[in-house]
Amino acid sequence: MADSIRLGIIGAGRIGKIHAENISYQIPQAKIVALADVNMNPQMEAWAHGLGIETTMKDPKQMMKDPSIDAVVICSSTDTHADFVIMAAQAGKHIFCEKPIDLSVAKVKAALKAAKDANVKLQIGFNRRFDHNFGRIRQHAIDGDIGAVQIVKITSRDPAPPPASYVAVSGGIFLDMMIHDFDMARFQAGSEITEVYAVGSVLVDPEIGKAGDVDTAIVTLKFANGAVGVIDNSRKAIYGYDQRVEVFGSKGAAMADNDLPNTVRMFGQDGVTGEKPLYFFLERYKKAFIDEMVSFIDCIAKGTAPAVTGEDGLENMYAALAATRSLKEKRPVTIEEIRSSHK
Amino acid sequence: MADSIRLGIIGAGRIGKIHAENISYQIPQAKIVALADVNMNPQMEAWAHGLGIETTMKDPKQMMKDPSIDAVVICSSTDTHADFVIMAAQAGKHIFCEKPIDLSVAKVKAALKAAKDANVKLQIGFNRRFDHNFGRIRQHAIDGDIGAVQIVKITSRDPAPPPASYVAVSGGIFLDMMIHDFDMARFQAGSEITEVYAVGSVLVDPEIGKAGDVDTAIVTLKFANGAVGVIDNSRKAIYGYDQRVEVFGSKGAAMADNDLPNTVRMFGQDGVTGEKPLYFFLERYKKAFIDEMVSFIDCIAKGTAPAVTGEDGLENMYAALAATRSLKEKRPVTIEEIRSSHK
Amino acid sequence: MADSIRLGIIGAGRIGKIHAENISYQIPQAKIVALADVNMNPQMEAWAHGLGIETTMKDPKQMMKDPSIDAVVICSSTDTHADFVIMAAQAGKHIFCEKPIDLSVAKVKAALKAAKDANVKLQIGFNRRFDHNFGRIRQHAIDGDIGAVQIVKITSRDPAPPPASYVAVSGGIFLDMMIHDFDMARFQAGSEITEVYAVGSVLVDPEIGKAGDVDTAIVTLKFANGAVGVIDNSRKAIYGYDQRVEVFGSKGAAMADNDLPNTVRMFGQDGVTGEKPLYFFLERYKKAFIDEMVSFIDCIAKGTAPAVTGEDGLENMYAALAATRSLKEKRPVTIEEIRSSHK
Amino acid sequence: MADSIRLGIIGAGRIGKIHAENISYQIPQAKIVALADVNMNPQMEAWAHGLGIETTMKDPKQMMKDPSIDAVVICSSTDTHADFVIMAAQAGKHIFCEKPIDLSVAKVKAALKAAKDANVKLQIGFNRRFDHNFGRIRQHAIDGDIGAVQIVKITSRDPAPPPASYVAVSGGIFLDMMIHDFDMARFQAGSEITEVYAVGSVLVDPEIGKAGDVDTAIVTLKFANGAVGVIDNSRKAIYGYDQRVEVFGSKGAAMADNDLPNTVRMFGQDGVTGEKPLYFFLERYKKAFIDEMVSFIDCIAKGTAPAVTGEDGLENMYAALAATRSLKEKRPVTIEEIRSSHK
Repeated sequence: MADSIRLGIIGAGRIGKIHAENISYQIPQAKIVALADVNMNPQMEAWAHGLGIETTMKDPKQMMKDPSIDAVVICSSTDTHADFVIMAAQAGKHIFCEKPIDLSVAKVKAALKAAKDANVKLQIGFNRRFDHNFGRIRQHAIDGDIGAVQIVKITSRDPAPPPASYVAVSGGIFLDMMIHDFDMARFQAGSEITEVYAVGSVLVDPEIGKAGDVDTAIVTLKFANGAVGVIDNSRKAIYGYDQRVEVFGSKGAAMADNDLPNTVRMFGQDGVTGEKPLYFFLERYKKAFIDEMVSFIDCIAKGTAPAVTGEDGLENMYAALAATRSLKEKRPVTIEEIRSSHK
Repeated sequence: MADSIRLGIIGAGRIGKIHAENISYQIPQAKIVALADVNMNPQMEAWAHGLGIETTMKDPKQMMKDPSIDAVVICSSTDTHADFVIMAAQAGKHIFCEKPIDLSVAKVKAALKAAKDANVKLQIGFNRRFDHNFGRIRQHAIDGDIGAVQIVKITSRDPAPPPASYVAVSGGIFLDMMIHDFDMARFQAGSEITEVYAVGSVLVDPEIGKAGDVDTAIVTLKFANGAVGVIDNSRKAIYGYDQRVEVFGSKGAAMADNDLPNTVRMFGQDGVTGEKPLYFFLERYKKAFIDEMVSFIDCIAKGTAPAVTGEDGLENMYAALAATRSLKEKRPVTIEEIRSSHK
Repeated sequence: MADSIRLGIIGAGRIGKIHAENISYQIPQAKIVALADVNMNPQMEAWAHGLGIETTMKDPKQMMKDPSIDAVVICSSTDTHADFVIMAAQAGKHIFCEKPIDLSVAKVKAALKAAKDANVKLQIGFNRRFDHNFGRIRQHAIDGDIGAVQIVKITSRDPAPPPASYVAVSGGIFLDMMIHDFDMARFQAGSEITEVYAVGSVLVDPEIGKAGDVDTAIVTLKFANGAVGVIDNSRKAIYGYDQRVEVFGSKGAAMADNDLPNTVRMFGQDGVTGEKPLYFFLERYKKAFIDEMVSFIDCIAKGTAPAVTGEDGLENMYAALAATRSLKEKRPVTIEEIRSSHK
Repeated sequence: MADSIRLGIIGAGRIGKIHAENISYQIPQAKIVALADVNMNPQMEAWAHGLGIETTMKDPKQMMKDPSIDAVVICSSTDTHADFVIMAAQAGKHIFCEKPIDLSVAKVKAALKAAKDANVKLQIGFNRRFDHNFGRIRQHAIDGDIGAVQIVKITSRDPAPPPASYVAVSGGIFLDMMIHDFDMARFQAGSEITEVYAVGSVLVDPEIGKAGDVDTAIVTLKFANGAVGVIDNSRKAIYGYDQRVEVFGSKGAAMADNDLPNTVRMFGQDGVTGEKPLYFFLERYKKAFIDEMVSFIDCIAKGTAPAVTGEDGLENMYAALAATRSLKEKRPVTIEEIRSSHK
C-alpha cells in the first residue's frame, strides 16, 4: 500500500511484541518504522530488524520528532502511559495506549485533555470488544434481535492468580482485572453504569488477602437505561480462562460460550469428554488483538472516531473505583459519587 | 406393596392434581385414600374416583381423624397452609406442604413448632432440589469434583409474567419467585446465606411496578462458608423458562444448561436452529415433582429426615425478606438482621 | 372418557409389561380388560390386578371371544406373532403387533392378508418413529425445511451384545437389529428402499461370528426417489446406546443427537465431562413406547390408518433380507430381487 | 533461525499464494527465495517482492539450477505436477506437491520413482491430516482412548458445486473431492483400504450428470485391519462446508463437529439460533495449511519422513479409482484389482 500508516511502538514487552508482530505480519496497511524501549538491547534490536523495523531507541523522544510517524502504540509500563500519551499528543501523533492509562484519575484526565487539545485520536486497549463472540452478541443487539437490553451477565475468570507482589501494586482486582469487564458491560448494555455494589472474598490465595485485595468478586451494576448487570471474577479457574457474556432483553438473549482448541468429544465408558477453554488471554484474544489494531489503523486512515476512546477508559476506571469503595464500605456506590470526588 | 403409605391430599388445584396423579400412577409405594378441597364438586369427585381415591370431602378435618392416614399433602391456597400444617401435626400426620408455608414469619414459626412438638415429618415443596440437572451438580460437589465451593450462579427466568393482580398479593418477586432460587443457592453452596444485596427494575410490565414490585432483579449472596453467589430473575424470558445453575470451586465448575424438547438441530441457509427450553415449570420439573414425593414417602417409610425441611422454608423466607428490604433501602442486609427482627 | 378403547394384551414379558403399564397409567382413553400369557401364574395375576386388569388367562382364545374387546396388543414370543395376528383378525379385533411379525415372509404375508380380509387395523411396533428427536426431523422434512431429501444417515449401536445363543436364532443382525433402522430410513426418506449393499465384520465378539453373524455392519441404501442412505450398526458401544439420525437435503440438514440423563458439564483440570447417552432402548424410547400406543388407540378411535402398517413391516423385512444376501454374496441386492423370490 | 530452509514456489494461483503468505508471515524457519509462474506479470512480481521474494521467473528451470534452494513447493496446474516433481527430484530438491500428483497412475508412479531415486523428500498436500479436530481424533486413537478402531465415518460436503466445465475435466467426484476423504479414512483407521463400494446420484445439478459424474455419493470401505468405514459427499450443502469425522472403537468413539465462526447462541421467540459452519476450505483449513507446511519444513530440517508421502497419494488414488469403477459397474471393487491393472 502506497500510503500505509507509519507507526512507532513504545515498549517491547510481551504485549508490545504481540502488537509489533501482528502489525508486521497481519496488517499490511500499516508499517512500524521505530521502536523505543527503555531496556533496548542487541537481542531486541535483532528482533526489531527481523520485523523490518528500521530505527530502535531507548527514549521515545526521538520518535516524537520524526514527522513521518503518524501514530504511536504505547505498550510500556503503566506508570509511563500518561506521560507518553501527553508527549505523543503534543507531538501531534495519534495514540493507541494499552490499558490502563494510569491508576490516578487526575493523570488520566490530563492525558485525555492533551489528546483532545492536540486533536489526535486516542484509542485504549480494551481488546475484548473486538472478540468474535462478544462482537457477535453486540451485533445481535444492534440488529434488534435482543430488543431492549435488560440484563448483562459477564463471567470472567483467570486460569491462575498473579503473584501477590503484583497484586499489591495492581490497584486491586477491580482496577486490574474487572476493568475489562466493566468495559464489556458498558459496551454490551449500550449505556453507562450508574451504580455498583461489590462483594468479594479471599478464596484462592491467602497472600492476595494479605496484600489487601480479594481474589473472588461479584459486582452488580445498574445502567442509565434501567438495565441491570452482574460480573463475576475469580483469579483462578482450574479449567482455564473462562470468558462468557450473556445479554438478555425483551426479544431474546444472546449467549457466548468459551472458545475451545477443537470440537472433538470423546465418548468413553466413563462419560463424554471435551476440551477445556483456550488457556489464557493470549490464546483466547489472539485475533481480537489484531482486530483492535486494524480498527485503530482504520480510524486514522478514515478519520473516524476510535472504537474505544479515552473517555471509555475513564468511565471504566470510575466503575472500578466505585467497586473498590463499595467492597470496602459495604454499600452501593454511584459512579456520580466517584466522579464528583475527582472534580 | 403390602404396607404402602396412606395419604390424604388437601387441595386439588393445579399442583394438587399433579401430586395426586403422580402418586397414583408413578409411586406404587403410596396410596391416596382421601381428598379434601374447599371447592369439592361432582367433577372433582369423579376425577378422584378415577384415580382410585375412595373418600372426598370439603373440610380436611375429617381426614385428620382417620387413623389409617399416615400423612397429608397440603396443596391448598397459601393462606391456609400454616393452619393445615398445625392441624395435621396435632393429628400426628406427617406433612408435605407446598411452598410457602406462609407469608408471615410468625405463622411459619408456629407451624414449624407444631410439627416439631408432634414429632412428625414436615417436607416443603422446594421441588427443584430433585431436578436431574441440579441434583447432578450437587452430586459433583459431594463427590469432591468441585472442591471448595466459591461461586454459585443461578439464572431463573419465567416465560411470562403473572397478572399484576397476582403480583400485588404475592409478597413480591423475592418471596414469590426468587425464594426457589434462594433454596437452590443454599442447597448448592452447602452453606447458609448470611447477607444479600438486591438490585431490581421494572422492565417487563409497568403494571408490576404500579403494584409495588419489580420484574427484573439481581441479588448477590454471601454464604457462611465464605462463598459468594448471584441470582438473576426475570418475569419474562421470551424464549421460555430459563433455569440454569453453575457452581464454581477450587477443583472445577459444574454447569447445567436448560432441558430441551428434543436434540434436533436444523442446519439451513440462515444458520443452525434448535429448540427453545421446555416451556415452564410443569414441563421442566415434571420428574422433579415425582421425585420430591418419592423422597417424602421414603423419609416416612425409612424414618429418615425430609430432604427439604421446614427450617429450609424459614431460611429461604429470611433470604427473601432480606432481599426485599435490601431493594427498598438500597443497602446490603444480613440474614441476622431479619432473623433478629422476628424474635 | 366414556367410550375408552378396550384392550387385551397377549404376552406379559418385558415389553408386554411396559405396554400394559403405559396404557394403565398414561393412556386414559384405553383400558386393558384382559391379559393372556402362556406362563400365567399367581405373581403375574397379582401384577395384572394391580393394574386393574380383570381377566387373566393362559390362552388368548378366550380373549378373542369377548365381544367387548376392541383390540389386542401382541407381545408374545416372535414365533407366535403371526398366528395371533391371524386369530385376532378373524375375531375382528384391531391389532398392535410387536416386531417382527415373523421371520418367514410367507407367514408375514399370511398375517397381513388376514388383517386385510378382516378389515382390521394392524400396527407394527416400530416405536422409533414416535421418538421425539426423530419425529422432529421428519417434521422438518414435512415442513419443507430440508427440501428434497438427498442423504439419510443413521447411526444405531447397542450398549452390549446379546448372547451368542440368542444371535443364533435371531435371524442375524439385519433382521434382528438393523430392521429398526431400515424402518427409520424409509420413514425419513419418505420413499422406499430399492437397493442395498452391506459390509460387515466380527469385531465385538468372536462367538457371534461362530454363530454365523456379524456384529458390526454398514449398509448403503438407494431410495426410489433418488436419495441415498447409510446405516451403521454395532452390537457394542461402550458408551451406551447410540441412536442418531441425520437427513440432508437441498434446503438444509436436520441432525438429532443422543438424549442424555442430564445437561450438566463438569469443567475440571483434565477437560470438560458430560453424561453418556441414555443406556438402552427402555430409557431412550420410554416416551416413544407410550406415543406409539397412543397413536394405535387414536387410529382405532378415529378410524384412521395406523402410523406403521403391516406393509411397513414387510418392506423392512425385505430390506433386511436383501442386506443379509448382500453381505453373503458380496454384491448389491435390489429389493425387487427379494420380493420376486417370495412371490 | 540461522539456517532457515530456502524455498522456491512454483505456481502463484490461489493455493500458491496461500502457501507463500503462510511461509512468509507464519513460518520463520523457512524463507521463499524464488517464485515461478507461467503467467508471471508485474502485478505478481510486486506481490512477490512485497513478501520479500527476491527472484521471480516464468519457467522453474532456473529455480532448479539454484544450489541455494533446498526445496520447492509445487502449486501449479495439476497437469504439470508430475513433470515438476521429476524435474525437482533430479535437481535434488525436496518437494511439497499439491494434490493430486496426476490423474494418471503411470505418471504418479514415475514421479514417485524420481523422488525415491533422488532420495529427496516428497510431501503431498493432503492438508486435512493437520486439522486441529481431525488430528485430535487421531491422537485419541494413538493414546488408546478409542481402542481397536471398528468404524470410521466421514462426512464431507462442499458449500457449492464447481461449474460443470470443471467437473468434466476433474476426474470425477471420487478423484477430485472424495480423495481427501480416502486419505482421512486411511489416516484415521491406521490401516489401508482393501475394498470399496460406491453409490451415487445426481441430485444437486443436472449439468454434473451430463458431464458424466455424480454430485452425491456414499462409499463404504473395508480396511486391512477388519474395520469398516463410510464416506458421504455432496457437492452442495446449503449451510456451508460440512466436515466431520467420527472414529468408533472398542473403548469409545471420538467425534469432531464443525468449526463455527463464533460460539454465540441467540435465544429468541422462534427457537435458538447459532452460526453455520465456516464457509469453505480456506476458512476451515486455514491453520491446517500452515501446519502442513511447518511439518514439511520440519521433516527437511530434521531429516524425518514426510507426514503425507507420495505413496499416500498413490493409495488415495487407487481408492478413488476403485470407487469410480464401483459406481460404474455396480459392484464392490478391491484396491488390489486396481493396483494389478496398473502394474
